[in-house]
Amino acid sequence: MSNEANLSDVSDVLAIDSLLSAGELAVRERVRDFTNQRIRPGIAGWYDDAVFPLDLAPELGELGVLGMHLEGYGCPGRSAVEYGLAAMELEAGDSGIRTFVSVQGSLAMTAIHKWGSEDQKQEWLPRMAAGELIGAFALTEPTAGSDPASMKTFARRDGSADTAGWVLDGAKRWIGLASVADVLVVWAMTEDGVRGFLVPAGTPGVTATPIGQKLSMRASIQCDITFDAVRLGPEALLPAARGLRGPFSCLNEARYGIAWGAMGAARDSYEAALAYAQERLQFGKPLAGYQLTQEKLVNMLLEIQKGTLLALHLGRLKDAGRLRPEQISLGKLNNVREALSIAREARTILGGNGITLDYSPLRHAANLESVRTYEGTDEVHTLVLGQHLTGIPAFR
Amino acid sequence: MSNEANLSDVSDVLAIDSLLSAGELAVRERVRDFTNQRIRPGIAGWYDDAVFPLDLAPELGELGVLGMHLEGYGCPGRSAVEYGLAAMELEAGDSGIRTFVSVQGSLAMTAIHKWGSEDQKQEWLPRMAAGELIGAFALTEPTAGSDPASMKTFARRDGSADTAGWVLDGAKRWIGLASVADVLVVWAMTEDGVRGFLVPAGTPGVTATPIGQKLSMRASIQCDITFDAVRLGPEALLPAARGLRGPFSCLNEARYGIAWGAMGAARDSYEAALAYAQERLQFGKPLAGYQLTQEKLVNMLLEIQKGTLLALHLGRLKDAGRLRPEQISLGKLNNVREALSIAREARTILGGNGITLDYSPLRHAANLESVRTYEGTDEVHTLVLGQHLTGIPAFR
Amino acid sequence: MSNEANLSDVSDVLAIDSLLSAGELAVRERVRDFTNQRIRPGIAGWYDDAVFPLDLAPELGELGVLGMHLEGYGCPGRSAVEYGLAAMELEAGDSGIRTFVSVQGSLAMTAIHKWGSEDQKQEWLPRMAAGELIGAFALTEPTAGSDPASMKTFARRDGSADTAGWVLDGAKRWIGLASVADVLVVWAMTEDGVRGFLVPAGTPGVTATPIGQKLSMRASIQCDITFDAVRLGPEALLPAARGLRGPFSCLNEARYGIAWGAMGAARDSYEAALAYAQERLQFGKPLAGYQLTQEKLVNMLLEIQKGTLLALHLGRLKDAGRLRPEQISLGKLNNVREALSIAREARTILGGNGITLDYSPLRHAANLESVRTYEGTDEVHTLVLGQHLTGIPAFR
Amino acid sequence: MSNEANLSDVSDVLAIDSLLSAGELAVRERVRDFTNQRIRPGIAGWYDDAVFPLDLAPELGELGVLGMHLEGYGCPGRSAVEYGLAAMELEAGDSGIRTFVSVQGSLAMTAIHKWGSEDQKQEWLPRMAAGELIGAFALTEPTAGSDPASMKTFARRDGSADTAGWVLDGAKRWIGLASVADVLVVWAMTEDGVRGFLVPAGTPGVTATPIGQKLSMRASIQCDITFDAVRLGPEALLPAARGLRGPFSCLNEARYGIAWGAMGAARDSYEAALAYAQERLQFGKPLAGYQLTQEKLVNMLLEIQKGTLLALHLGRLKDAGRLRPEQISLGKLNNVREALSIAREARTILGGNGITLDYSPLRHAANLESVRTYEGTDEVHTLVLGQHLTGIPAFR
Repeated sequence: MSNEANLSDVSDVLAIDSLLSAGELAVRERVRDFTNQRIRPGIAGWYDDAVFPLDLAPELGELGVLGMHLEGYGCPGRSAVEYGLAAMELEAGDSGIRTFVSVQGSLAMTAIHKWGSEDQKQEWLPRMAAGELIGAFALTEPTAGSDPASMKTFARRDGSADTAGWVLDGAKRWIGLASVADVLVVWAMTEDGVRGFLVPAGTPGVTATPIGQKLSMRASIQCDITFDAVRLGPEALLPAARGLRGPFSCLNEARYGIAWGAMGAARDSYEAALAYAQERLQFGKPLAGYQLTQEKLVNMLLEIQKGTLLALHLGRLKDAGRLRPEQISLGKLNNVREALSIAREARTILGGNGITLDYSPLRHAANLESVRTYEGTDEVHTLVLGQHLTGIPAFR
Repeated sequence: MSNEANLSDVSDVLAIDSLLSAGELAVRERVRDFTNQRIRPGIAGWYDDAVFPLDLAPELGELGVLGMHLEGYGCPGRSAVEYGLAAMELEAGDSGIRTFVSVQGSLAMTAIHKWGSEDQKQEWLPRMAAGELIGAFALTEPTAGSDPASMKTFARRDGSADTAGWVLDGAKRWIGLASVADVLVVWAMTEDGVRGFLVPAGTPGVTATPIGQKLSMRASIQCDITFDAVRLGPEALLPAARGLRGPFSCLNEARYGIAWGAMGAARDSYEAALAYAQERLQFGKPLAGYQLTQEKLVNMLLEIQKGTLLALHLGRLKDAGRLRPEQISLGKLNNVREALSIAREARTILGGNGITLDYSPLRHAANLESVRTYEGTDEVHTLVLGQHLTGIPAFR
Repeated sequence: MSNEANLSDVSDVLAIDSLLSAGELAVRERVRDFTNQRIRPGIAGWYDDAVFPLDLAPELGELGVLGMHLEGYGCPGRSAVEYGLAAMELEAGDSGIRTFVSVQGSLAMTAIHKWGSEDQKQEWLPRMAAGELIGAFALTEPTAGSDPASMKTFARRDGSADTAGWVLDGAKRWIGLASVADVLVVWAMTEDGVRGFLVPAGTPGVTATPIGQKLSMRASIQCDITFDAVRLGPEALLPAARGLRGPFSCLNEARYGIAWGAMGAARDSYEAALAYAQERLQFGKPLAGYQLTQEKLVNMLLEIQKGTLLALHLGRLKDAGRLRPEQISLGKLNNVREALSIAREARTILGGNGITLDYSPLRHAANLESVRTYEGTDEVHTLVLGQHLTGIPAFR
Repeated sequence: MSNEANLSDVSDVLAIDSLLSAGELAVRERVRDFTNQRIRPGIAGWYDDAVFPLDLAPELGELGVLGMHLEGYGCPGRSAVEYGLAAMELEAGDSGIRTFVSVQGSLAMTAIHKWGSEDQKQEWLPRMAAGELIGAFALTEPTAGSDPASMKTFARRDGSADTAGWVLDGAKRWIGLASVADVLVVWAMTEDGVRGFLVPAGTPGVTATPIGQKLSMRASIQCDITFDAVRLGPEALLPAARGLRGPFSCLNEARYGIAWGAMGAARDSYEAALAYAQERLQFGKPLAGYQLTQEKLVNMLLEIQKGTLLALHLGRLKDAGRLRPEQISLGKLNNVREALSIAREARTILGGNGITLDYSPLRHAANLESVRTYEGTDEVHTLVLGQHLTGIPAFR
């Protein structure tokens, strides 16, 4: 591993590590070890077989990365930068694993932590932080990926009393982990606007079907869900969330982690390409000695360093309580876009061997196709920022 | 299907169809029908299951696309342009299927047709043209993808007599169809330089193992082959091929077809994205009505049209007997590179749905990762052309 | 010059010259000689001094490139391909010179030839074809470059009789050659929609002021024009032009020539960079021997060849009477965009020396900034094509 | 100016200003005011007339930006970050002005400060800091822009005594300010390797000729210099500089400033484009309201913010005494490349008006062609970084 350490030192051209505290470096080291020991050995097989390694959940809980940035209720309570570093290391393993951590922590647990009742928090959060229970976050619908305001899933009051429960009908799509989740955070339109509900696994009328034949994030699960006259008690409602601000605040948490995570996938792609280029001979010389290869490596590394600097800047702002949505949009847009481009470029250095799961770049590139789409496509974030800069909305 | 016809008319902005003869259009129509009826319905399943649909072989033979450009010995004897159009339509289905046709016709059959003895031609070509027998072409080695001159597979004379046979030792990698082939065309170093051999399936000492865990061209087969003291009779030798000119002339045939085929994958990606953009509503308006979407569609289509014009130009030169290797390099380099870029861009229009096999662009993009690598990477063709333009080799 | 010939042979990788007739090659040769002898020696000085070499006009007339594609009235009556080849050679010299030829021939003379009365044609065309008289074409207005329909220049009837003349008020901008023109073709709104007028130089109330401090096309003239109660006789009206179809048909003529011309600027940039790279030593080796340089040269040349193939295809369609506006949009969009990119890339090979007028690429790049904007920006042509492909206008 | 302030607040999406101290912000404000009052009003004229506004020199001295980061001898002694911020604001005005400040302070004064004798420092630095005297830095030679080791200018001992002077012969090219400089820092080969010399203006045998017909940095001066048997006293030698480390350490100072400065040109280009897009109507709507425009603005702004974050990071490392050459290479490579791309993109928003000196982007783009070349081209910095990352030099 001394080799890897050196590689990292050389490649950290900007000495970004010098901006991290000893505590932060320790968190990163611990997650990096986990990735090396628990993700790397199995990922090719999981990906090829299209299975999510569910038994990693309690291990990730023990590692302290589930609801990592939340306080209390058994949550680790780490800083935003520490959470970001963890996301980066996990996604250096695989975007699908990082996605599970995001869905569990940034989406489902954050929703409960932020908008739930004391009872709801007590019931769910400790065991979710431990990875004993899995959560999902059901917002996106089949016909409106980028426009949650047009949501069609509807929850109507089940009776007229204030204590009445709800009847839920509708459909969701691309819901991570839904088929294995113990609880779904479901966002639905009501007569009073969008509200959130906690729907335990096994509630009659709920059907979650994993989406098959995927070309991306195969070591992960995304589902179609249908809600067919699902009866929920009044205690299912997340009391504090009203309107789209509820789910959107969770999405911003997730996007923040993505900005870090994507750079992990990028760095791993770069390192795989560099290692290959140094070993592989062509015309008797290592590939790494050719100008065309060095140009690729330099441009990759340069964007990784810029993206990491950006992620760290966002993290510092977040820890200072000053992170704004348009900053997250910028981070997500840039870092995923650049990571995808880096993974693709890294793959070209691997020649024919690059198309197998023996090497990570093409897998990362495939994964990042999902990452670039979820939590806001390039176009959505571009127009969010466009409105911020010009004051004029151009979405329609 | 009238819809498709209109789509095509509108998208053929440059009226390239008007440059094709009625006979050429008829060939294209026939292959397009085959793709629609025999490839499209099954491709998602084959790809997901990573199987090559071997029973298509005789059907492709009947369609007349195996050894399509060869004369005599049961071969179809069509023009280069007709062969190109067929490659384009097949690859609109899937690069893996077009690759089979290239390996069979442009590589294996061409090698036999060009360098074989009369007996060899009689024995193999008619049944290969019919798709009853499968051929493979074993040139690339594990440690030297882009440098065949460093070939390590060796054939030594098995005795001193002129009528002596050969003993073959070595290894090949990325050999298409090898595990299901009835005959392997194997290129090996000898005391007299590189020579070609026909090695029938089942020859003792030959082991072909499909490469697994692929992220590209999953509806196709590529193999590792080892040759362990394989004894061949004197009749195994391809008498007329001496030196690397033998295999290289076959590679040029294949590259020519790739320049066309890649544009098929690109066009299919574009058409999938356009159809989706016209149906999918966002904020109540079809995606196709947004400036950001139109910009993508226009840039995709523009490169498809330029690439198709280029392929057709190469075809006309080939039919006139004037096609030169650097022209093929230019066509392969450009058309595969642009096709990959187009498939990736098309995929972004599909949102989350684009990561499943329900839509073709991401599958095409994944496939083109192989196509871009085999028969010469971007870098190799760039340096081939660079030497042509400057007179100075810069490979090392 | 044998050097140049060889350069050209090698760089015409696709053998596009073989698609040209002996007559076409002869036209090209003649214009190329003119460029070598009359444009190249003076262009650096004209550009630096920001002067248009007006005395080239009669020489260009004698060369037969003014109104080159028009029949009768002293016009050369050459084919569209010949006109295109001439535009390419002239713009290999400088975009400003080619622009003069376009304004004179494709805009002003075409307007008169197509929409003028017999008297108007007799009066102006022969001397314009000879380069004795200069024409300008006044369509664009200060506040509406890309939206001629919002034209504010207005011509009202000067009295009520049918034989009444007109009073013209308004302003135009970016009007090529206006300050030296003998006649202005002016498009103005009237009560009956847009009409065209021939306004001779010196008509009271017309003021044409050259736009100064230009960073592009400095060897050319563009003017602001104001029309202040300009009285015109009834014979000033172009009788046959009604509505925007009048000026638009001329613009399409000009755009066709631009698609060719831009490739001339691109080719000259490439040739300058290649020659420099072959002579200039770095670390004791010609720049042309480095991988990073070859990559640039190859990518430049590749786009030049594709763009030239495209221009020739458009020319053949035009000579067959089948060229459609969206095809011209595609050609203009692509060829100018690529030419600009090529000129910029070529300039990087020249190092520091590349920023002086001793070398052409940066001058071409600067010029192409104008060419890319006039006759429709990238965005306008993208949205024109977008509407063609999707059926949905997205201009607003 | 409240408008500008708001613009800046909105566009500082990442709140980079919050990372600056009050003192740093004050420095920036002061230089920004200078740019607004002394550079912006005159720059179009100076550029068009190709004159350097020499009378700005003492004003820049008074502003405290000459030798800004140097201590003692009348130098301002500001931090690296403050110097960087000043470079950014000056280059928001014009690269030529910032270049003067770099040549004076980072090159000529730094050479004297770092390698000069006490007498040399006393003689030159105070008046150079005040802008009363101008310095130049003569390293680059006509035939070896990127390879100073092949230097041909030679200084031989003028006699054999230790106290003998020198005779200097040779030629330099692209030497900023040389024709107006009061002192030239000249690097020459000697029998003991490369040494530096201070050559006062007017020394017999020195001829400095401004390079004319420039398409870039026209409000600046670069010269050819010839040294024809120039006799120098022993006191001309910079005693402490030996070998290429002498000039290289100055180049790194200059490159550091360029990494900041380029972002100034980029920001000014962006702001010009944004302001235009908000005012200019098309089809009755501001350009800024169109998706295609917003996409451009967002991508520009995003790279400006990343580049500024990077420059600030380099500045903090420099102030901590930890800045390494490869970090500067990364900053120079990235920030100039991105700035050029931003200036070009900004220019497209300005339509036809963008080609005049009324708007800054095309001027900035033209200037950045010089900036990208001097102090190491993209290729040189790419290969410097490539060697750092891979351990293998690929320069030859």
